[in-house]
Amino acid sequence: MALIVLKIGGTEGVNPDAILDDVAEHWKREQNLVLVHGGSAEATALGEQLGRPPRFIVSPSGHTSRYTDRATLEVFIMAVNGKINTLLVEGLRRRGVNAFGLSGLDGGLLQGTRKEAIQSVENGKRKIIRDDYSGKIERVHVPLLRWLLENGYLPLVAPLAVGAQGEALNVDADRAAAQIAVALGADWLILLTAAPGLLERFPDESSLIRELPFAQISQAHQAAQGRMKKKVLAAEEALSGGVPRVLIADGRISNPLQRALQGEGTLIHL
Amino acid sequence: MALIVLKIGGTEGVNPDAILDDVAEHWKREQNLVLVHGGSAEATALGEQLGRPPRFIVSPSGHTSRYTDRATLEVFIMAVNGKINTLLVEGLRRRGVNAFGLSGLDGGLLQGTRKEAIQSVENGKRKIIRDDYSGKIERVHVPLLRWLLENGYLPLVAPLAVGAQGEALNVDADRAAAQIAVALGADWLILLTAAPGLLERFPDESSLIRELPFAQISQAHQAAQGRMKKKVLAAEEALSGGVPRVLIADGRISNPLQRALQGEGTLIHL
Repeated sequence: MALIVLKIGGTEGVNPDAILDDVAEHWKREQNLVLVHGGSAEATALGEQLGRPPRFIVSPSGHTSRYTDRATLEVFIMAVNGKINTLLVEGLRRRGVNAFGLSGLDGGLLQGTRKEAIQSVENGKRKIIRDDYSGKIERVHVPLLRWLLENGYLPLVAPLAVGAQGEALNVDADRAAAQIAVALGADWLILLTAAPGLLERFPDESSLIRELPFAQISQAHQAAQGRMKKKVLAAEEALSGGVPRVLIADGRISNPLQRALQGEGTLIHL
Repeated sequence: MALIVLKIGGTEGVNPDAILDDVAEHWKREQNLVLVHGGSAEATALGEQLGRPPRFIVSPSGHTSRYTDRATLEVFIMAVNGKINTLLVEGLRRRGVNAFGLSGLDGGLLQGTRKEAIQSVENGKRKIIRDDYSGKIERVHVPLLRWLLENGYLPLVAPLAVGAQGEALNVDADRAAAQIAVALGADWLILLTAAPGLLERFPDESSLIRELPFAQISQAHQAAQGRMKKKVLAAEEALSGGVPRVLIADGRISNPLQRALQGEGTLIHL
């Protein structure tokens, strides 16, 4: 039974009902799946409703990330570990799956380091940001996930980690999924997205890259635009860590998991 | 080692730092504790910020409960299972405790039944409410809590249950704590509150009832006002279910857990 780590988005641009239907069907055949979810769009929407619109940090190398001061972290926690995680657990339980939601704080599942000083470029000037609560995962506490799987629980992980001081950290969900796949020795990492896969010439969907050996990952980095950059980075981290196959596949369609496993989407492999 | 189920409030009227300090100290001596938390005040505050002020149902017998339509349930989930649960886990981890947050949905921990038709009295008229997502706990999945305790995790439970259809239900946290105490065969149920305990003549704090045998629980029902009614009901359910000792004690003071165990507060016992 192949072990799969599946990253699904929050709700933006994907079809959560189709994903949950397909996950439930898969789980009934093979109880060997870990889900990781995002939720940036929901965090942004909640922040706006609460009068805290998101701010973003642009790194000197051009990567964009969410500026997570303490107040933003609390909004992120409510949206992602509150609403999204709980409603996905509920959606799975309604489909007869014994889902178990947790974040990287619970039982120290995802241990990370906080980015204590982040370089940011604003209006062409560099500045250092010190009150950001985002981080990088250093260690996954594997026995917890194994115990859940062995006892018939489908783990559903929200992208928070715990820092060295015990503090909550916002982490990137695609990269969290990659770290979990590496730590578990998963057979597949599957990243669902609002596109058919990685496109050679974004946004031309007919330019889908169907297959790419890991040795040619630089082609993937060149092709990736916007959010896809993080997915390619996650794919690279998973493959470097020994996960043999990464799929970047369409989360907007029916049976997205099944169809990804049947070869739709972009396969990057060792 | 006595097994304790401790119910703490959200943040209103209690001192969360003092509670977490004391819980951490206790946990380092005896890893035999389950926490249950509330969060109504936070859910109310968040609902107000989001333009959804709370509505309440008054039963024909005069009990007040939150009217939880689907939109209110989602606010409750964000505030209680998102913010409060996660920040309490963080607070405990900062104090070196391997806390594990979960709600009654996770792994089917708290299985309940939805109140499908609730009688409500409005302006003297009775009406039936059918779109409420609150419920009553019927069964606690004990092996999950035992496994967490046996593996050094402090379980921290948010008051949601899962209904027969897999749906999320808002449940009363005091009564959830009582059900968990019964199911685990706990030695103590401790309910922290914003008062020194149960008062004979509310709000006169010098009229504290120090000790009451279960046989005289009707005195407690008579004395209880407001939110305390639910605590006395929870105490009764715990004692009826075989929990030998229930303490209703002050959550506003330093070392609230230690002082409750030393006899401050109201002890109701078999």
